[in-house]
Amino acid sequence: MGADSSAPTVRATVVQASTVFYDTPATLDKAERLLAEAASYGSQLVVFPEAFIGGYPRGSNFGVTIGSRTAKGREEFRKYHATAIDVPGPEVDRLAAMAGKYKVYLVMGVIERDGYTLYCTVLFFDSQGHYLGKHRKVMPTALERIIWGFGDGSTIPVYETPIGKIGAAICWENRMPLLRTAMYAKGIEIYCAPTADARDIWQSSMTHIALEGGCFVLSANQFCRRKDYPPPPEYEFSGADDLTPDSVVCAGGSVIISPSGTVLAGPNYDGEALISADLDLGEIARAKFDFDVVGHYSRPEVLSLVVRDNPTKPVSFTSASVKTEDFQK
Amino acid sequence: MGADSSAPTVRATVVQASTVFYDTPATLDKAERLLAEAASYGSQLVVFPEAFIGGYPRGSNFGVTIGSRTAKGREEFRKYHATAIDVPGPEVDRLAAMAGKYKVYLVMGVIERDGYTLYCTVLFFDSQGHYLGKHRKVMPTALERIIWGFGDGSTIPVYETPIGKIGAAICWENRMPLLRTAMYAKGIEIYCAPTADARDIWQSSMTHIALEGGCFVLSANQFCRRKDYPPPPEYEFSGADDLTPDSVVCAGGSVIISPSGTVLAGPNYDGEALISADLDLGEIARAKFDFDVVGHYSRPEVLSLVVRDNPTKPVSFTSASVKTEDFQK
Amino acid sequence: MGADSSAPTVRATVVQASTVFYDTPATLDKAERLLAEAASYGSQLVVFPEAFIGGYPRGSNFGVTIGSRTAKGREEFRKYHATAIDVPGPEVDRLAAMAGKYKVYLVMGVIERDGYTLYCTVLFFDSQGHYLGKHRKVMPTALERIIWGFGDGSTIPVYETPIGKIGAAICWENRMPLLRTAMYAKGIEIYCAPTADARDIWQSSMTHIALEGGCFVLSANQFCRRKDYPPPPEYEFSGADDLTPDSVVCAGGSVIISPSGTVLAGPNYDGEALISADLDLGEIARAKFDFDVVGHYSRPEVLSLVVRDNPTKPVSFTSASVKTEDFQK
Amino acid sequence: MGADSSAPTVRATVVQASTVFYDTPATLDKAERLLAEAASYGSQLVVFPEAFIGGYPRGSNFGVTIGSRTAKGREEFRKYHATAIDVPGPEVDRLAAMAGKYKVYLVMGVIERDGYTLYCTVLFFDSQGHYLGKHRKVMPTALERIIWGFGDGSTIPVYETPIGKIGAAICWENRMPLLRTAMYAKGIEIYCAPTADARDIWQSSMTHIALEGGCFVLSANQFCRRKDYPPPPEYEFSGADDLTPDSVVCAGGSVIISPSGTVLAGPNYDGEALISADLDLGEIARAKFDFDVVGHYSRPEVLSLVVRDNPTKPVSFTSASVKTEDFQK
Amino acid sequence: MGADSSAPTVRATVVQASTVFYDTPATLDKAERLLAEAASYGSQLVVFPEAFIGGYPRGSNFGVTIGSRTAKGREEFRKYHATAIDVPGPEVDRLAAMAGKYKVYLVMGVIERDGYTLYCTVLFFDSQGHYLGKHRKVMPTALERIIWGFGDGSTIPVYETPIGKIGAAICWENRMPLLRTAMYAKGIEIYCAPTADARDIWQSSMTHIALEGGCFVLSANQFCRRKDYPPPPEYEFSGADDLTPDSVVCAGGSVIISPSGTVLAGPNYDGEALISADLDLGEIARAKFDFDVVGHYSRPEVLSLVVRDNPTKPVSFTSASVKTEDFQK
Amino acid sequence: MGADSSAPTVRATVVQASTVFYDTPATLDKAERLLAEAASYGSQLVVFPEAFIGGYPRGSNFGVTIGSRTAKGREEFRKYHATAIDVPGPEVDRLAAMAGKYKVYLVMGVIERDGYTLYCTVLFFDSQGHYLGKHRKVMPTALERIIWGFGDGSTIPVYETPIGKIGAAICWENRMPLLRTAMYAKGIEIYCAPTADARDIWQSSMTHIALEGGCFVLSANQFCRRKDYPPPPEYEFSGADDLTPDSVVCAGGSVIISPSGTVLAGPNYDGEALISADLDLGEIARAKFDFDVVGHYSRPEVLSLVVRDNPTKPVSFTSASVKTEDFQK
Repeated sequence: MGADSSAPTVRATVVQASTVFYDTPATLDKAERLLAEAASYGSQLVVFPEAFIGGYPRGSNFGVTIGSRTAKGREEFRKYHATAIDVPGPEVDRLAAMAGKYKVYLVMGVIERDGYTLYCTVLFFDSQGHYLGKHRKVMPTALERIIWGFGDGSTIPVYETPIGKIGAAICWENRMPLLRTAMYAKGIEIYCAPTADARDIWQSSMTHIALEGGCFVLSANQFCRRKDYPPPPEYEFSGADDLTPDSVVCAGGSVIISPSGTVLAGPNYDGEALISADLDLGEIARAKFDFDVVGHYSRPEVLSLVVRDNPTKPVSFTSASVKTEDFQK
Repeated sequence: MGADSSAPTVRATVVQASTVFYDTPATLDKAERLLAEAASYGSQLVVFPEAFIGGYPRGSNFGVTIGSRTAKGREEFRKYHATAIDVPGPEVDRLAAMAGKYKVYLVMGVIERDGYTLYCTVLFFDSQGHYLGKHRKVMPTALERIIWGFGDGSTIPVYETPIGKIGAAICWENRMPLLRTAMYAKGIEIYCAPTADARDIWQSSMTHIALEGGCFVLSANQFCRRKDYPPPPEYEFSGADDLTPDSVVCAGGSVIISPSGTVLAGPNYDGEALISADLDLGEIARAKFDFDVVGHYSRPEVLSLVVRDNPTKPVSFTSASVKTEDFQK
Repeated sequence: MGADSSAPTVRATVVQASTVFYDTPATLDKAERLLAEAASYGSQLVVFPEAFIGGYPRGSNFGVTIGSRTAKGREEFRKYHATAIDVPGPEVDRLAAMAGKYKVYLVMGVIERDGYTLYCTVLFFDSQGHYLGKHRKVMPTALERIIWGFGDGSTIPVYETPIGKIGAAICWENRMPLLRTAMYAKGIEIYCAPTADARDIWQSSMTHIALEGGCFVLSANQFCRRKDYPPPPEYEFSGADDLTPDSVVCAGGSVIISPSGTVLAGPNYDGEALISADLDLGEIARAKFDFDVVGHYSRPEVLSLVVRDNPTKPVSFTSASVKTEDFQK
Repeated sequence: MGADSSAPTVRATVVQASTVFYDTPATLDKAERLLAEAASYGSQLVVFPEAFIGGYPRGSNFGVTIGSRTAKGREEFRKYHATAIDVPGPEVDRLAAMAGKYKVYLVMGVIERDGYTLYCTVLFFDSQGHYLGKHRKVMPTALERIIWGFGDGSTIPVYETPIGKIGAAICWENRMPLLRTAMYAKGIEIYCAPTADARDIWQSSMTHIALEGGCFVLSANQFCRRKDYPPPPEYEFSGADDLTPDSVVCAGGSVIISPSGTVLAGPNYDGEALISADLDLGEIARAKFDFDVVGHYSRPEVLSLVVRDNPTKPVSFTSASVKTEDFQK
Repeated sequence: MGADSSAPTVRATVVQASTVFYDTPATLDKAERLLAEAASYGSQLVVFPEAFIGGYPRGSNFGVTIGSRTAKGREEFRKYHATAIDVPGPEVDRLAAMAGKYKVYLVMGVIERDGYTLYCTVLFFDSQGHYLGKHRKVMPTALERIIWGFGDGSTIPVYETPIGKIGAAICWENRMPLLRTAMYAKGIEIYCAPTADARDIWQSSMTHIALEGGCFVLSANQFCRRKDYPPPPEYEFSGADDLTPDSVVCAGGSVIISPSGTVLAGPNYDGEALISADLDLGEIARAKFDFDVVGHYSRPEVLSLVVRDNPTKPVSFTSASVKTEDFQK
Repeated sequence: MGADSSAPTVRATVVQASTVFYDTPATLDKAERLLAEAASYGSQLVVFPEAFIGGYPRGSNFGVTIGSRTAKGREEFRKYHATAIDVPGPEVDRLAAMAGKYKVYLVMGVIERDGYTLYCTVLFFDSQGHYLGKHRKVMPTALERIIWGFGDGSTIPVYETPIGKIGAAICWENRMPLLRTAMYAKGIEIYCAPTADARDIWQSSMTHIALEGGCFVLSANQFCRRKDYPPPPEYEFSGADDLTPDSVVCAGGSVIISPSGTVLAGPNYDGEALISADLDLGEIARAKFDFDVVGHYSRPEVLSLVVRDNPTKPVSFTSASVKTEDFQK
């Protein structure tokens, strides 16, 4: 590559839209419509919000208080569990087919079902229609800890693709400096941040990460009104009695930021939308000239992070053949 | 799967009956009668007690004291050995045929003969009449250790079937927390506990396992009177001179318990019986929402169990082709 | 020790009483009164319930729903955090002094404050007034996960004392087979189970553990009425509007069980009480002759548990001197 | 401590002012005037910018291009070296006396001289007039790397004081996630960020750090006009020929932010100023309830940082007595 | 080996030539022409200057002054970064092929690209066409510190080959006594010193090292005129307005010195050239009889150097397979 | 110290003169004459050659061959031993008095007698007439090893004085990179190199050390003709039969070099002489700006030298009080 060769530019879209709650087939249909629309604009990469497939049960408390549960909450979990998807499984196959049909790289937030534990997971697909692998949220936030399990170090992938190195951190994982550093060390260039946090201060973290990591940051959040969830009593927002069907319960704020901290598109707080930008990958070298967090600006002799990225299982079987996805990166 | 889809319900039967001691063909006949009866009630799964085929030589000491044996005890063993079955073998074929004929999943306690060592084994058959595989008791109790060998880690199977994931632990194996955990890790949903322990406190363990494992527990024990064994002097209950032919020597206590610890059927201490219940598999998700022993409630980074589930043999031959069943799971 | 020497008998008391909520000094005063009373009966070991110091915030949800928090909930946490105690610290000193004054071994459930993360912890003291160390709950249940951190493998102690080897597992930790096995492996003889679970089925697990572990099990729970918590609006039981001040919100069920599964005292569901029994330590050998879970009844070559009991810290400093308690066992 | 006890409130001041360049005695005089003024407002903690003592040689290139130096640049360094201070040394004594006289905690950016290598250092003093220790910048930025050495892991202190736990990271050190995590692990509550970066995006990083660390962030920058540096040709801004004496060459932007991301004072881009706020330390517990970066929101089993905090010297002498400050923390 | 056997003589060539700046393919072509020419003279070892591939950006300042950068400087870095090579990578393959084709040992100065950090690196190839490994400069000089990262202790190799033990130190690394000692300890016999320092006093260091190390020293520098760099404004020599296209900007001074301090060839300050000499390896033993720096003339009980030669990474992944070159020596 | 203060300038003199062999009192007289002369020129520091007091027995072999000695050689040693001086002792007192009288810092090469072992030592005196301490050569060269002992790490001092930090390395000690680094680490500014090596290549090492250490280098050698030694047969130059009384047997080459490698005075190969220069100590900062060997140009995390500088004695007595000089530095 000669010095005059310009770095590639990638058109990327962040989807700001709501799950069709408790209806996974309809949510997949909606995903396909949004994907088609983004592809029609020439987008090469489409990032969906956290838990887009399976849904983010905002406002629910699953009948749990300290030391107590309710039968209703357990049944709520059974339904939520039934809405989740197996990985791999038929819904994953359908998402892969979509990515291939519209020739886009797809980053999709899902609720993954592994036996009876759920995970908040992001799936990655290439534009040839292959499922690449997944990231499981390593630390759920607050009440999420009672509905989702905890990912381990084996699913913190960064995929090297023709449009750049892609990975994802979900919601407040983005506040975890050691997790981010693990991803920086894998060379992440297009840092996807599916989230459920629509507050203003979220933007500060997105800008900071772009600067810290010298990477593009693409944050996708759902935009949801109360009516995007089933009506009460089927679905209830605990302690929020004054919601009208049109009340905004998640305001979005999806955004795309460059490695130098410039906001390229968004943040959008107005409604469902596709937020798109052209990413000049040459910005990365220009930014890392100043600050390369795991390169010239690290002090590995003083500060070194160990990432245990082998799968941890409560029980391991010595004769079991290793499944491919366990070692994806 | 939409959230409204209900989980399947499975009708299961636990057999509480006695071996026809020293008469394996008659015992097989008796098994078929009991199986037919359970099937006629619509049962999809039938679980027999420990050592139903081959017999549980209750009360015998095989002439053994510390430092000494007797010729009589040796002959007693020869007879017991002769009653045991080869796996595979003709009795296994017959059991498979029965399962297919009555279209039930069959879990059967047997005494397995492997050369001149016996094992306390459970065999699994599907409702199409296929032998699925076996579990060998890994640790016999007390005097059992002089008549039975020790299973290894290669036969602790859990079978995924249309009616749920099925496995078995035998008698005091159920007290082994690591063994249970191995089965939980394999996703067991219908936990069979063929046993020979008829004491009240056995019920506590059964309830605990249902809660701990988030699974249905089906415990099957024989109900035996003295007369179910050959009369003295052919067969003697050592040190129990006051037994009448009608004395109960094993009181049963077979039981079925749900994942939330609710007793669905039994315990029965009255006589031979078929104990049946309908298992709502949706209970599993509801229970695991609270406690998923190898999922969200595990700490694999702190506590990790290693199960060596490759077969261990005292002698291996390099040219030998690996038999399929060695790797079943 | 000659064969005639009898094994020691230990008088033990389980305290069933309620925290003085939000008032740690008053709770310590109450603890001392109860301790004094138990000692006056000759008790050598006194076990308090989970979170006796610091309180179990039953019925609270800390304003948390999925994806949302409230300022009120955060302030509730600040107050709960302020009620917790540092370990070591002045409250630990006072508890140690109490143990020494009344010459009892003391096992006390507390809420431990470590910076801004809380832990559900059990403290151990000897009858000379020394603080021995602590156990931190390794996996909080359900909503507890948003108020308490997760202990690691370094604080699963079993203390060898003149009255036997003492350790503790808290509430649903008792359902964790690998954690229990870790304690069995350390030789636990007097297994304390401070809890907040007052349901009947809790008794099954206690009996099972006594049998499985071949140890005495002492389960202590609080007995609380609604009025033992501050009145609304200062403290609210979420979604429980029909509580009167006298409503029982935690029914106790404290119990003492022998290694053979015999209930020695309790369960008591009637009110605050001291439940006491004399523990004949000779029972342990008699029980383990049958079943020694990490001894003759284990199969370590097949099933082996790895306990990572070094402290895990997100950040370690290479020059830091190792603190003694980190390696206690 | 009862739950009703309120957390302390601390009045803090960030100084936004310029060094008297090349005149260390005059800079110390100016520091004392500013400190006195802050103290007269009741401030208990005063934070000065990076390199306030010794100066930040903005716009200089010290005659260095790749592969080349100039005699003029070397003489420029000799003068800069002469302006720096030894630690400890007479200037440190004077700063300590100031802190004691005005009864404030003082955090002061200095250029430290250690032989012929300079360090960009922050010094800490308590309100009784004691020098507490220092932090040396571990990784200088860009051209700073030719005038300043690199600190090691032994000077990343956090001091526990009656007004909270205080530490500092300098300028783009604040972008180093592993360094920040080391400070979080030491429990930092009042995070000082002396800087020379006056760009808008600096604010995003400050807000992010407050959220990530759950701490107060106090960022102090100089406000400098061209005339605050010696006139040309004595001091030259390379490639900036159009500067008038009143041109702003560093716009400040000093700011104070709370653990929840609220801006309490500043950012100020207008001129020299004292920026003050009252810090309610109770905010820390409220914020860490949500997110405790090295507590309940860490995953030490997966991600663990090792900080080598012993001093590293190119040469060590076995008989040398260890100097106290080498092991400060 | 009998005493009469003569030690081998090796014909070695030092290349004094200029990079084709910003044109890596053309530079590789030029390297091959020079290599072919040296081989045609019978040379067995060819040493190129520092940064021959990728270029030494002499006179540039990348738009950096203290506290400031320029967009132009960042773009200059992007282009420089694009000119660098990955190791391994296609350019490394081509160099290996060249070495094999001309059957020479090749020591080549390159700019290595590792993500977005660059290193000043020397690559080693054997005469069969194999890439042996690399040395990364451990401490860049002056402004180099803003464009190049710092090597660690894992890439200070000395390769044992049929023509002697070969290693390299780059430019002012040759002034680092501890680094040299590390190489002496690895037994270096042919010490390569690619450099960018063309001053007379460089010769003193080369002679000193030959004496100190008892090794042959081969120093290679570029000979460059202003016209070997792109014309302004594409490439500018900061503050050097009086350069004509023919101005010498790097005068070479390449030299070959024997272990006894005798200059065998060079220094050449006249233009591009191949400087060759025959190295009588028997000289080494003769010189070390007097002075063996890590042998009889060391005092290890008084003075001992610790070389931390494990790779230091800011982030390590426990499952990562170890790359071979990390442990080369 | 303000930035405008100029660094001090020191006038230093290197003495190039011969011992009065076998006549220590006469040598002391000669030393005083030379010292007086240097002082009269304003010199503040005077450095004498290696072994000026006691003599350098050039050309002697003390009758030693492999496996054999001679009586003549033994007597030669007795005479040499008698010429040496005790430290402390009367000759040391006289030297101290000289330094005080002429108000110069004095660095004097001597042969030190410690019982029956001799050391090649350098003594240091301040201008007030105090003996400061000594450096013993740590590694004699070649045949020196049969007449001199080996110094340990306790006598490698660098003295901080008003005219700079002064130390010394003797002859080929100057080739020992670890020894030099120990002195650099002690901050040496005026590096004295008394020697007996008069070859041209010695100059390369002196220049290299000035550059490497960023210090002034003052090398003092004797200038001797054959007649400066006793005539044969009293004193014989083994194997050098063609010497005339005027033959030069040591050509001097004394020299003074600045930290930037500039030769300030010498080398003189013509005869006995005083070589003087004014040392501008500001040059040190200017040079270390480029290269600070134990400061900004070190990599202590990779390369670290351990100096065992406690005294090593073959026999120690526990009751012995430690002599002060053992810990001098």
